[in-house]
Amino acid sequence: MSILARAINDVANRLRVDPDWGDVAAYIPELALVEPHQLAIAVVTADGTTYAAGDADTPFSVQSITKVFTLAIALGRVGDQLWGRVGREPSGRAFNSIVQLEQENGRPRNPFINAGAIVVTDEILSGRAPRDALAEIVQFIRAAAEDDDIHIDDAVAASETAHGHRNFALAHFLASCGNLKNTPDRTLGTYFHQCALTMTARQLAMAGRFLVEAPDLPRLVSPVRARRLKALMMTCGHYDGSGDFAYRVGIPAKSGVGGGILAIVPGKASIAAWSPGLNRYGNSLKGTEALAQLARQMEWSVF
Amino acid sequence: MSILARAINDVANRLRVDPDWGDVAAYIPELALVEPHQLAIAVVTADGTTYAAGDADTPFSVQSITKVFTLAIALGRVGDQLWGRVGREPSGRAFNSIVQLEQENGRPRNPFINAGAIVVTDEILSGRAPRDALAEIVQFIRAAAEDDDIHIDDAVAASETAHGHRNFALAHFLASCGNLKNTPDRTLGTYFHQCALTMTARQLAMAGRFLVEAPDLPRLVSPVRARRLKALMMTCGHYDGSGDFAYRVGIPAKSGVGGGILAIVPGKASIAAWSPGLNRYGNSLKGTEALAQLARQMEWSVF
Amino acid sequence: MSILARAINDVANRLRVDPDWGDVAAYIPELALVEPHQLAIAVVTADGTTYAAGDADTPFSVQSITKVFTLAIALGRVGDQLWGRVGREPSGRAFNSIVQLEQENGRPRNPFINAGAIVVTDEILSGRAPRDALAEIVQFIRAAAEDDDIHIDDAVAASETAHGHRNFALAHFLASCGNLKNTPDRTLGTYFHQCALTMTARQLAMAGRFLVEAPDLPRLVSPVRARRLKALMMTCGHYDGSGDFAYRVGIPAKSGVGGGILAIVPGKASIAAWSPGLNRYGNSLKGTEALAQLARQMEWSVF
Amino acid sequence: MSILARAINDVANRLRVDPDWGDVAAYIPELALVEPHQLAIAVVTADGTTYAAGDADTPFSVQSITKVFTLAIALGRVGDQLWGRVGREPSGRAFNSIVQLEQENGRPRNPFINAGAIVVTDEILSGRAPRDALAEIVQFIRAAAEDDDIHIDDAVAASETAHGHRNFALAHFLASCGNLKNTPDRTLGTYFHQCALTMTARQLAMAGRFLVEAPDLPRLVSPVRARRLKALMMTCGHYDGSGDFAYRVGIPAKSGVGGGILAIVPGKASIAAWSPGLNRYGNSLKGTEALAQLARQMEWSVF
Repeated sequence: MSILARAINDVANRLRVDPDWGDVAAYIPELALVEPHQLAIAVVTADGTTYAAGDADTPFSVQSITKVFTLAIALGRVGDQLWGRVGREPSGRAFNSIVQLEQENGRPRNPFINAGAIVVTDEILSGRAPRDALAEIVQFIRAAAEDDDIHIDDAVAASETAHGHRNFALAHFLASCGNLKNTPDRTLGTYFHQCALTMTARQLAMAGRFLVEAPDLPRLVSPVRARRLKALMMTCGHYDGSGDFAYRVGIPAKSGVGGGILAIVPGKASIAAWSPGLNRYGNSLKGTEALAQLARQMEWSVF
Repeated sequence: MSILARAINDVANRLRVDPDWGDVAAYIPELALVEPHQLAIAVVTADGTTYAAGDADTPFSVQSITKVFTLAIALGRVGDQLWGRVGREPSGRAFNSIVQLEQENGRPRNPFINAGAIVVTDEILSGRAPRDALAEIVQFIRAAAEDDDIHIDDAVAASETAHGHRNFALAHFLASCGNLKNTPDRTLGTYFHQCALTMTARQLAMAGRFLVEAPDLPRLVSPVRARRLKALMMTCGHYDGSGDFAYRVGIPAKSGVGGGILAIVPGKASIAAWSPGLNRYGNSLKGTEALAQLARQMEWSVF
Repeated sequence: MSILARAINDVANRLRVDPDWGDVAAYIPELALVEPHQLAIAVVTADGTTYAAGDADTPFSVQSITKVFTLAIALGRVGDQLWGRVGREPSGRAFNSIVQLEQENGRPRNPFINAGAIVVTDEILSGRAPRDALAEIVQFIRAAAEDDDIHIDDAVAASETAHGHRNFALAHFLASCGNLKNTPDRTLGTYFHQCALTMTARQLAMAGRFLVEAPDLPRLVSPVRARRLKALMMTCGHYDGSGDFAYRVGIPAKSGVGGGILAIVPGKASIAAWSPGLNRYGNSLKGTEALAQLARQMEWSVF
Repeated sequence: MSILARAINDVANRLRVDPDWGDVAAYIPELALVEPHQLAIAVVTADGTTYAAGDADTPFSVQSITKVFTLAIALGRVGDQLWGRVGREPSGRAFNSIVQLEQENGRPRNPFINAGAIVVTDEILSGRAPRDALAEIVQFIRAAAEDDDIHIDDAVAASETAHGHRNFALAHFLASCGNLKNTPDRTLGTYFHQCALTMTARQLAMAGRFLVEAPDLPRLVSPVRARRLKALMMTCGHYDGSGDFAYRVGIPAKSGVGGGILAIVPGKASIAAWSPGLNRYGNSLKGTEALAQLARQMEWSVF
């Protein structure tokens, strides 16, 4: 058994006995139903080998992790023009805060807080039908994972739509500032479906390979763009817990309220961790801890 | 000619030659079409006599001035329970700010900023159809003015609905905090129609009589409630220009972005001033000035 | 016994049995030593008669109530120029908040929050020695009260200086924005001494007579200025509880953390209420209640 | 000539002809006197070789770059206890903002904004004389640079003290929240002297070697701590321009208002760039650009 395989198993076993599983996101009813005592780690290394432990074949709602992929798509479509509509700075606020949107006149601080991600989706949606935009997003992620068995969970999308008042507030505020090309309903319809993508940890680790930049792994974006996506994951990937994650774990990563985290070790590995219970910043409690332990054991800091 | 009649004419004549008419509200397209060079003053005194000058018979959109009437209606329906949903403090922010709504967890600072007025309308709407709620609002104002020729301008309501993203953001935010009993669409539909009420300065001065509390004028609410409504008009009636208005004019008043202001001299008079151009706080430029000059000339401060 | 005398006694007796005395201000150690179970009401009516109940001859620290007098002095010295340095709007924040000072580039929202009062004192201090500025302040208040037995409590001033970090932060911030003419130490030295003025409720009610504007009461400022001071007391006199005080009590007033409140019934009376325990806004709990009951009983609302 | 030597020269030559030199910091008078048309780049590689171009032997005021060294010292003294007094998150605000300090009850967001660095210095100062604390700071930096010719510029320290009202505001605010162990004067005296350290780009690159973690370079802190210091430099090293720097340059770095930047390529190099003119975030305009170009040319991103 390789060092990595053993490390993954060790971490998973250690964490499974820790009684604090955090709190499952309550504001999306469909997600609140998820059994909290689940944990998965999946790693794809530079040579293409996959290692996994725990519930790595259980599908979960990837939620905000899709923001990494939609950002890659939007930059592919409009390039640096996108930065006229959204910034690149950590927000210093909760993921769904509307305060900064008013203070910065409708330009979200970065593409990974909700307001910024809504703008990114709005950009992808520009000039075509929601179903076409969603098809491109799903297709991009399937291609990245080399796996066509990745789908949108309509029940989750419906649940988010029904309880998405905060996101509607953000979208209408963006519209009132002239920073939305489509109607709030249209953009959010696409956004909620995108967030409702369901993947297993194994699939997510596969989908993240294009960010690793290793000779044997697929490339979907230019090296400069891959590095920049990782830079944003590092500074903004965990909302108002980004600084802490960088300090403790030291690798670029993006979390979702479904409890998943996609982390990239440049040149070395794509990692997906998943456990549904969240910490106070809205990031997976055990997922964060799994990455911290694995990174320490494998000496996988970028610093 | 009485002292008051002469004062009103003097003020109107002086202001009409001043070349700065302010800027007509641009964010509601239908209001932006209003001819700016208009000015009206109408006063109903304690004995019931009406005095008027300028365009006192030209209808205009009363907009936020309706918030005084809807607040009276809502307090009549649920009494002090209303204050669980909305505060009584000046906001220190623009009329449409969403920042404080996040800071105060969805409880608007007072019933005269947009968020607070939406809550008041939502309360009136509770348990019945929008048309019935609107009928009560219109009926209350017609009864107050003793004039059935007061109507809602559907074109203005439609224009506000089409360009009301900021209000939709506020309503969805309220909903996300559990402080909306109806759907945002339903409450805002009622709210936009209420704001689109059209009245002349003469009608508005008549409608304000119940707040004067004079033996010969009609009473629609208890004396305590009338005083409290005037207290709120004093501290919160001009958004973030309320302190300045109290300092310069010294009587309780409520402004609307259509350029109207309803001011009350307790025990003495109900005044309506109107001129469509606004100052930087969103209050009528010449309307404010007319009230300042008239109050000074008539010694009508409450202080 | 007159109606007013009976009303004052009734209110005082009722309130003395209520077991909730609020919390004495803890952040100034010298004030924290004050026995909380004290209550005083003193009223001077338009004919110059004084009515009092409770501990009306016990001296207490008037603290922020001096801001009314220093504002009158500063306006007398520089007139409306003062408003270039300080605004006239309610703050929507706590009395010692520094947030708005940064948002408004060092121009305090109004002269009754700490930052604004520091600017007013700084203006009075401009071009002369602290002792001369303090002498003018004390002399003004003695003249207003027609009582030379009004003094500064040096122990309270020393206690505030030693524990006044928040005020030092405000003063240095003002200096960093170029809105302080003297050094922070010099201005705050004067400010802390001014706040440490000690008066009885009877003396305070006497000192407030010039704001009543009655033929038999002394006048120290012009009628326009007196009205404007009262307008500011109404909109800003109770920090972030000003709207609530206007709603419940309906007369202009200014509170201090020593538990005193000076309230003015225009044309009718100057009232001082005192009880050391504070409510959550930092205003006297029983003092506010005393004024609310007295105003209701005497029908003393300005509205 | 090596590839690196050529790259450094190319970058320096290209930047020297660009006419936009930014604006020298104006709020510290002594720094405002610095000739703006200066540029230096110095690099120490993993094998200990130094490469330099431009004004690499001209001393400049390192200012906030000292915060990296004082953080290392403070962590050495009290370890993770330090994080009870200061956070690890990007601030989303200007370097000298006081807003967040109020919102977070006196716990600065991170150790690299002014408020946080004042807390770090206060911790180092705890229990001993300012001269001893300063001696340790200077000694640490001299040891890191293996160069005793590094000194504090008293004229700069005096200039900052005389014009440091904003920092005094921060320190007094911290004290008012109980988050200062020494008096504001004492802590700021030490802080201003620490910031007034003068170094050449060559010396600064030498001093940064301990963060590189290469076998031939000196180590002053544990590997885990070195990585964590770099993580904080990445997420918080450029104030509200940190996200942009990570995106464009992709290596951990810390800037100072004197126009210097210390950047670390883990395992490979310590870089000092210097040019006095600043961009709108308060970071060296040409220094940032030099690092961006050099990092791109040498493929020195951590991502």
